Amino acid sequence: MDYPSKFIEEAVTQISKLPGIGKKTALRLALHIIKDKQENTFALTNAINTLCENIQFCKHCHNISDSEVCMICTSHKRDRSVLCVVEDTQDVMAIENTSQFNGLYHVLGGVISPMNGIGPADLKIDSLVNRLNHGQSEIKEIILAISPTMEGDTTAFYINKRIKDIPMKVSVIARGIPVGGDLEYADEITLGRSITGRTLFN
Amino acid sequence: MDYPSKFIEEAVTQISKLPGIGKKTALRLALHIIKDKQENTFALTNAINTLCENIQFCKHCHNISDSEVCMICTSHKRDRSVLCVVEDTQDVMAIENTSQFNGLYHVLGGVISPMNGIGPADLKIDSLVNRLNHGQSEIKEIILAISPTMEGDTTAFYINKRIKDIPMKVSVIARGIPVGGDLEYADEITLGRSITGRTLFN
Repeated sequence: MDYPSKFIEEAVTQISKLPGIGKKTALRLALHIIKDKQENTFALTNAINTLCENIQFCKHCHNISDSEVCMICTSHKRDRSVLCVVEDTQDVMAIENTSQFNGLYHVLGGVISPMNGIGPADLKIDSLVNRLNHGQSEIKEIILAISPTMEGDTTAFYINKRIKDIPMKVSVIARGIPVGGDLEYADEITLGRSITGRTLFN
Repeated sequence: MDYPSKFIEEAVTQISKLPGIGKKTALRLALHIIKDKQENTFALTNAINTLCENIQFCKHCHNISDSEVCMICTSHKRDRSVLCVVEDTQDVMAIENTSQFNGLYHVLGGVISPMNGIGPADLKIDSLVNRLNHGQSEIKEIILAISPTMEGDTTAFYINKRIKDIPMKVSVIARGIPVGGDLEYADEITLGRSITGRTLFN
């Protein structure tokens, strides 16, 4: 496509490199930026630059953070005996939103996926093992809250194997019928798991 | 939603102000920016800032441009006797892509829409009338290539009324069944128009 301006062309090229944004959406955004007030655009680009320059990763849980140690790891209100292992930051935010978990987190930064060239060494698994092995560790239980996909299950098995010699309770989040979901439309594996993993009524 | 970092929160707030981007997409983009190389992010924000600071509007056709007069208006290869009136820059790009038009353009910057508080004075209609009235104007035909919506038709009627005293051919783009479209699924108005506006076979 021919653009009427090289500035538009460069902006569209850069914006369309973002995930899930194609050339058409990028053009729509670029034309919005032209119409918008300059101060709004500078607020946007400043926020992105500031994010990119100042963001840190917590040295304990590897979640994104404004400081060397994140707010959850420094909080005195959190239960330090339970550790929830998740794939990425979005999962931490999703679990925090449920208000059902008050322990600490460990962010792996992905799952083992040989197809995409991601092995155990690319994830924060060694760091997790060190954290559990650490002499003063108060952790008594770890919860593997990893998506029940093939890659996620592989990762969970691998972590379980790596930590099997450390005396500790290891649990996984329940698989079953989503609340509000219809039994009829559930797939066989999920329905089977919901029966084998049944809990007592009350 | 609670964000683990105030930098993330500010970036999500700013990104989600863009049209068609909600908080979830903005968060996904912000997390991508964190993972991406700094140089890529700076290339993105630079391109946006440069666009916002340097873009101009052609003083003749009001299309976006890198200079005072756009490439189409300065080109010697274009037919200066035909003027195509369109709503916005995307329409110019769409028509240019067809390679079926070699005249000049006039970008209105929108359509008359009383519901959104847009009247004729907010569009480049006076500028169009001046352009046609200009003593040295070579324009012999104007094509109204405005979307056949209620607002678009209103705008076309209004323009036609304003220029009715200027001796000039005024045409509108054909309404009919899209190429590859199925007659059975066309709406009644379009099908009706395709019959009244029929053309000779060959």
